[in-house]
Amino acid sequence: MKSFVDYPENSDFSIHNIPFGVAVFNKEYIACCTRIGDLIVDLATLYDYGFFDEINGLDENVFEAYTLNEFIELGKPVTNAVRLKLQQILGEDSKLANDEKSIADCFFELDQVKMMMPVHVPNYTDFYSSIEHATNVGKMFRDPENALLPNWRHLPVGYHGRASSIVISGTDIIRPKGQMKPPGADSPIFGPSKQLDFELEMAFIVNKNTEMGESISTADAEDAIFGMVLFNDWSARDIQSWEYVPLGPFLGKNFGSSVSPWVVTLEALNPFRTASPKQEPEVLNYLQFEGDKNFDINLEVSIQPENGEENLICQSNFKYMYWNMNQQLAHHTVNGCNVEVGDLYASGTISGQDPNSFGSMLELTWRGQNPLQLSNGTERKFIEDNDTVIMRGFAEKDGIRVGFGEVSGKILPAN
Amino acid sequence: MKSFVDYPENSDFSIHNIPFGVAVFNKEYIACCTRIGDLIVDLATLYDYGFFDEINGLDENVFEAYTLNEFIELGKPVTNAVRLKLQQILGEDSKLANDEKSIADCFFELDQVKMMMPVHVPNYTDFYSSIEHATNVGKMFRDPENALLPNWRHLPVGYHGRASSIVISGTDIIRPKGQMKPPGADSPIFGPSKQLDFELEMAFIVNKNTEMGESISTADAEDAIFGMVLFNDWSARDIQSWEYVPLGPFLGKNFGSSVSPWVVTLEALNPFRTASPKQEPEVLNYLQFEGDKNFDINLEVSIQPENGEENLICQSNFKYMYWNMNQQLAHHTVNGCNVEVGDLYASGTISGQDPNSFGSMLELTWRGQNPLQLSNGTERKFIEDNDTVIMRGFAEKDGIRVGFGEVSGKILPAN
Repeated sequence: MKSFVDYPENSDFSIHNIPFGVAVFNKEYIACCTRIGDLIVDLATLYDYGFFDEINGLDENVFEAYTLNEFIELGKPVTNAVRLKLQQILGEDSKLANDEKSIADCFFELDQVKMMMPVHVPNYTDFYSSIEHATNVGKMFRDPENALLPNWRHLPVGYHGRASSIVISGTDIIRPKGQMKPPGADSPIFGPSKQLDFELEMAFIVNKNTEMGESISTADAEDAIFGMVLFNDWSARDIQSWEYVPLGPFLGKNFGSSVSPWVVTLEALNPFRTASPKQEPEVLNYLQFEGDKNFDINLEVSIQPENGEENLICQSNFKYMYWNMNQQLAHHTVNGCNVEVGDLYASGTISGQDPNSFGSMLELTWRGQNPLQLSNGTERKFIEDNDTVIMRGFAEKDGIRVGFGEVSGKILPAN
Repeated sequence: MKSFVDYPENSDFSIHNIPFGVAVFNKEYIACCTRIGDLIVDLATLYDYGFFDEINGLDENVFEAYTLNEFIELGKPVTNAVRLKLQQILGEDSKLANDEKSIADCFFELDQVKMMMPVHVPNYTDFYSSIEHATNVGKMFRDPENALLPNWRHLPVGYHGRASSIVISGTDIIRPKGQMKPPGADSPIFGPSKQLDFELEMAFIVNKNTEMGESISTADAEDAIFGMVLFNDWSARDIQSWEYVPLGPFLGKNFGSSVSPWVVTLEALNPFRTASPKQEPEVLNYLQFEGDKNFDINLEVSIQPENGEENLICQSNFKYMYWNMNQQLAHHTVNGCNVEVGDLYASGTISGQDPNSFGSMLELTWRGQNPLQLSNGTERKFIEDNDTVIMRGFAEKDGIRVGFGEVSGKILPAN
């Protein structure tokens, strides 16, 4: 499959991808869009020009919207048909290749658009599904001999996060202030967090509303998942470690989370499926599943200090996840908890076995004990003011590349 | 102050109250409303008839809406002016008393309306601010000698809850299924919760959007709080106790929470202010406050088994809260977490010192050790199928009564 649009071989946005997002075009007009190579394609205008006329169930111009929610809610039969149609429209033999007016009106250079939050997120849940991450954290904060808590291998541990502070890549994050209790201190102090961290995560977005009391089985889960984004779950470790008992993370997390602008569909990720890690002990029936439910997605994190170059500090992979998305969604709804279109479910920090693959500064520096050396001669225990953290992700196999682009965020000094 | 509408002396909805809600009128028309005695007043039609013409800042008919959010967002200057205007319109000397057309068009009997969720809730947080409740739970599940965790007296512990499953009073709740680990069992089992519980709470609703990085001080908090509701934080104790480490409650809570339909404004609650409990040790600066920030609101809980009568099982009071709403909101935002109009912040279970005032079955029966005897000869350790739990709340002083009505919910058998 080839496109009439030229793009470099290593582009995340090959014709095999066709992700969905929302952009402001020329500072004046907002619409849903896709991306091919380095061109952004305005789907609302494509719709108006009749390119989607043959698609059943796409009766209104749902791309004329500030979010993808209305489109997503149409479900897989429609969203998949639109993606396949776009592969055809953008294909090398497409009529569009010679349709100058449509190209002029629908195709935009990167510097003509500003990406927005792709979806409105009604509910956000964060899981804790990497066994390497949970083990690392357990070793540091609890018992090195019994790092995993007793429930960890029986259910995908998760908690509700804050939806209001999820922001699009490129949004600055202000260093949070809060209570923390330094080691050995008698009482807590107040001030800017000194242990600001990232967490390398991915997240999936749900395409349906369910009723309370309804559950989604592992077999049905993928039908309810529109696609995925990269996710940085910013964390203030000093605030978190003081506040989190007994009800979990709160102010150590809810000051901001960043997402990448392009939602990559499960269908685009299909070629990169891989087996899941063996789960021992065997899980309860409602968590059992069939088929390859993990995805081989290369992930990396860089820190870029102000006026400095990028330093690659972590290389991980989404395939390491112990609990897969099907299990996460089945678990989340097994009690009848209802889901809503646009809900975002994050994986938890994605760490591998290799220390280089640990998905947070907490783990990479082992709580600050082994600072990272940056190319500008400085070192980092945690993230400093004016550092930018950049996460990237892509899958590649048999000459096909499908990627997420990046999610980046710069830390500004505390107010 | 008297109304031209007759109502019993013990009505929660005296002319001193003037709460706000949303109703379906005659199964066909939805609008914001207030209540006086046992009459529901359609505010959208009152607006159309010009009754609010003099109010500055009320330029559109925001009552013609499915939620109160648009009205609330106008802020205290407008919402207070509307409430005061309604006290005048409903007062004994009002022209409206003899305006037969307006009364026919705007006033409805209870059986002509169905109450809806009063607000759209973008974010829901649950605190844990009763020292008696936290102590009881700590004694049962952790260390009786050190029931309160070290952070408890330093900050109002809270966690993010699930917004999607907050429902209006009267909505049935289906018993959740899930994983639990019975005492002594080697591995978890799956099934309907056997320890379904209520939690007697109140919640406040925020009237503004803030930017990320912005904080609301204790001094400014009340200006950002539109009003309060009763809140039942349904809890499945067996699911919760297995899942909750280390990231907090999840499926043990997110299957449903119930709110009362009428939002009672802080202004209506003003006469019932009372001093807060002394906080020892002294709290950090950002949590300090001036004035009477607790409210003397009588709370009670009844269980009504199917085909049986109500059994009063708990009498508590909102004044017992150790952490007040100003402190909760200041803490929640001190790290720059942004709030949104309609956000709901719940108190946590409201227990007093007297065992009769404990706000959950967990505490009332001491984890099932001391079952409650009901008038129909049955006993309860936790809530059984087809039981209805009813919570009521009202404040009363110097002949003035302002109440919340009730929040009720019936438990249906698991699917």
